[in-house]
Amino acid sequence: MNEILIGNIIHAPKFGTLEILSRGYMVLNDGKIAGLYKNEAEIPANYTANAIKHDFGDKLILQAFCDTHLHAPQYPMLGMGMDLPLLEWLNTYTFNTEAHFANTEFATKCYTALANKMIRNGTTRCCTFSSLHRESTNILMRIFEKVGLTGFVGKVNMDRNSGDILTETTEQSKTETLKWLDDCADLKYIKPIITPRFTPSCTNELMDFLGKLANERNLPIQSHLSENTSEVAWVRELHPDCKQYWESYKKYGLFNDRTVMAHCVHSDERERQAMIENGVYVAHSPDSNINLISGIAPVRKMMNEGVHVTLASDIAGGSHLEMYHVLTDAIKASKGKKIQTDYTDEFLTVAEAYYLATTGGAKFFGGGDGFAIGDELHAIVIDDSDFSQPVRELTLRERFERSFYLMQEHNITDVFSAGRKVI
Amino acid sequence: MNEILIGNIIHAPKFGTLEILSRGYMVLNDGKIAGLYKNEAEIPANYTANAIKHDFGDKLILQAFCDTHLHAPQYPMLGMGMDLPLLEWLNTYTFNTEAHFANTEFATKCYTALANKMIRNGTTRCCTFSSLHRESTNILMRIFEKVGLTGFVGKVNMDRNSGDILTETTEQSKTETLKWLDDCADLKYIKPIITPRFTPSCTNELMDFLGKLANERNLPIQSHLSENTSEVAWVRELHPDCKQYWESYKKYGLFNDRTVMAHCVHSDERERQAMIENGVYVAHSPDSNINLISGIAPVRKMMNEGVHVTLASDIAGGSHLEMYHVLTDAIKASKGKKIQTDYTDEFLTVAEAYYLATTGGAKFFGGGDGFAIGDELHAIVIDDSDFSQPVRELTLRERFERSFYLMQEHNITDVFSAGRKVI
Repeated sequence: MNEILIGNIIHAPKFGTLEILSRGYMVLNDGKIAGLYKNEAEIPANYTANAIKHDFGDKLILQAFCDTHLHAPQYPMLGMGMDLPLLEWLNTYTFNTEAHFANTEFATKCYTALANKMIRNGTTRCCTFSSLHRESTNILMRIFEKVGLTGFVGKVNMDRNSGDILTETTEQSKTETLKWLDDCADLKYIKPIITPRFTPSCTNELMDFLGKLANERNLPIQSHLSENTSEVAWVRELHPDCKQYWESYKKYGLFNDRTVMAHCVHSDERERQAMIENGVYVAHSPDSNINLISGIAPVRKMMNEGVHVTLASDIAGGSHLEMYHVLTDAIKASKGKKIQTDYTDEFLTVAEAYYLATTGGAKFFGGGDGFAIGDELHAIVIDDSDFSQPVRELTLRERFERSFYLMQEHNITDVFSAGRKVI
Repeated sequence: MNEILIGNIIHAPKFGTLEILSRGYMVLNDGKIAGLYKNEAEIPANYTANAIKHDFGDKLILQAFCDTHLHAPQYPMLGMGMDLPLLEWLNTYTFNTEAHFANTEFATKCYTALANKMIRNGTTRCCTFSSLHRESTNILMRIFEKVGLTGFVGKVNMDRNSGDILTETTEQSKTETLKWLDDCADLKYIKPIITPRFTPSCTNELMDFLGKLANERNLPIQSHLSENTSEVAWVRELHPDCKQYWESYKKYGLFNDRTVMAHCVHSDERERQAMIENGVYVAHSPDSNINLISGIAPVRKMMNEGVHVTLASDIAGGSHLEMYHVLTDAIKASKGKKIQTDYTDEFLTVAEAYYLATTGGAKFFGGGDGFAIGDELHAIVIDDSDFSQPVRELTLRERFERSFYLMQEHNITDVFSAGRKVI
């Protein structure tokens, strides 16, 4: 089946580079991008025959967002406890909240609301932490798949240092993880990802098991790295044989080109070099990092060095799941970094932040450059007609920029995920 | 006429202190607050007789917001040009945009949209820069008054260094200012404020005229102070007789307890001391300061020292006029300051930021502490029932906190301004 999307198409094939097609044409063949054309005459005849047309008029057709790090069971605590220090926040809110996901009925209700909120706000690909509960994780995956989300969800593994209310034995953790992989084997769009919560909450035995499992079954991996300085010091105590935090993952086979590590705020040059050499992705979570006063990740420096940076909401350390907010948060955080470094580090432009929120993240899910030929379409359609009236006709580049600053859920009129129109 | 408002009342009589009345009662007498009561039995009988009841059920009744610095004619450029350096931003966007307000038809359309957006988002008191155009300034004031806003609007004065497109002679500036004061003399809720754009854009002759005028007619004053370092250096060149920026206002009688100065990012201890001694208010604009990479104002330090700090959107340096966003921006900026100062400066709590966005600003408009007896009511009513479902019943303190992080326009169901229900 051929489809033709018509509208103002803007995508970011490279970091910092936008391709803008004013009233351009995108041809889909069975949901996969077959070509982008500046005008109708350019489209090959075999594509136009019997094609279904979606004419979006003067609206903007943008790449959909990738959220490469979020905690689904923290959705009920969004925007709360932001005055608390990290450890008190974890103990008062996080662990207590996650513990409720032993209740599958509550999980179903909460995850349905979350999934709808994400897809309606234009996130179509995600890397998500569930809780340690196998059943609720399975529920989460099925709900995500049903609303049209794609990507990875992981049952969390945590067999130490996790408080009384939310823990599992090493043996339980192993057994439940294997069962969970069986549970979700039939899913098409939402796949499992190996998820040690972070080094301090996993015994060496469990880390070893998870590393081997990921390796045997070729599974991706997600965890946390160098979020704040006391955590970094703690890992040093727990793994005196490791010079740096990342090595506590590396030695168990949990640090490779299928790995995404959240935060990396305090990763120095050596740790960043290790990420480049091992092909590890960074899930930069600017809103969470400022809320929890973790620091500001040196993202512009990372990009210059060649680190794979992606963007993430990290709810509920982050207080919003809308990736257009996270995109502007990333710009603002990079400006904060510029101030912090006495105007040495450069800031992220809108085009650069858009790349990180879309193409940068998409690569972790196997995507190509921007709206790449052969990729299943992930796109959102923006109606910006209710934004403040400008004094003159705006360029598409200007409309593109202000969309991210002014967009709200209702401005996203259509969402395509993995080639399917899901909103 | 007596009215009784019933709901969950939360106000900030002091910096950092909340008073929370669960299903409390607020009595209004002709729009003025007559009393707050924990239960109906406490209310004096003469108040309950013939009183009109507004029962808001489980909703939150909060203080309405004060926005102490915004540029109304920059509304059309909201969220644009954020990648540009300050001077290019001013020349490409700001001056060109403001110049369009020579057109009163355009002004009417734009200001109507702005005024509605502000009041619907819970701002009821504001200090607003218009453009230099007398007629459009008059239009702006009348539209603000009509939708229920209160506070001050100033015709901007700028007779040098303002580009070719947007300037006035010293004589024009004086004459038009006097005419404008006559134009708006009949207004009740929106009053004039003397508005030298900032020291570099006003000749000494004009500054002298404006200072005398403000003094003779007892008018308030608004301007900019120490926003960025190159501006500070420029003022030093222009006024070699002034040790510091603030003195260029002081020497013309433009720096007193009816003055609000935007930004003060780079005000050192001596300048802050001068603000305290002269009773000057600071309009802290966290979003604008990060967008334009001006720096992060040391707000927590200012509060410790006794500076009057208020909050401001500063659109369109700021990219949103919703003061609940500015409130969380202020918290995040203070956390950025904590990071920048190696964890020395403390951050603003939610209760503290709420004070700044409400009571702190209200003082500039003659308001008392929180919902103070005798004050005309400025309040908003929040329906938070569509926020993410929590795992347990939340305390009012928790609902209060997350409101600011999660609120959107539709969550504000009612707005009271100067004792009148305007939404």
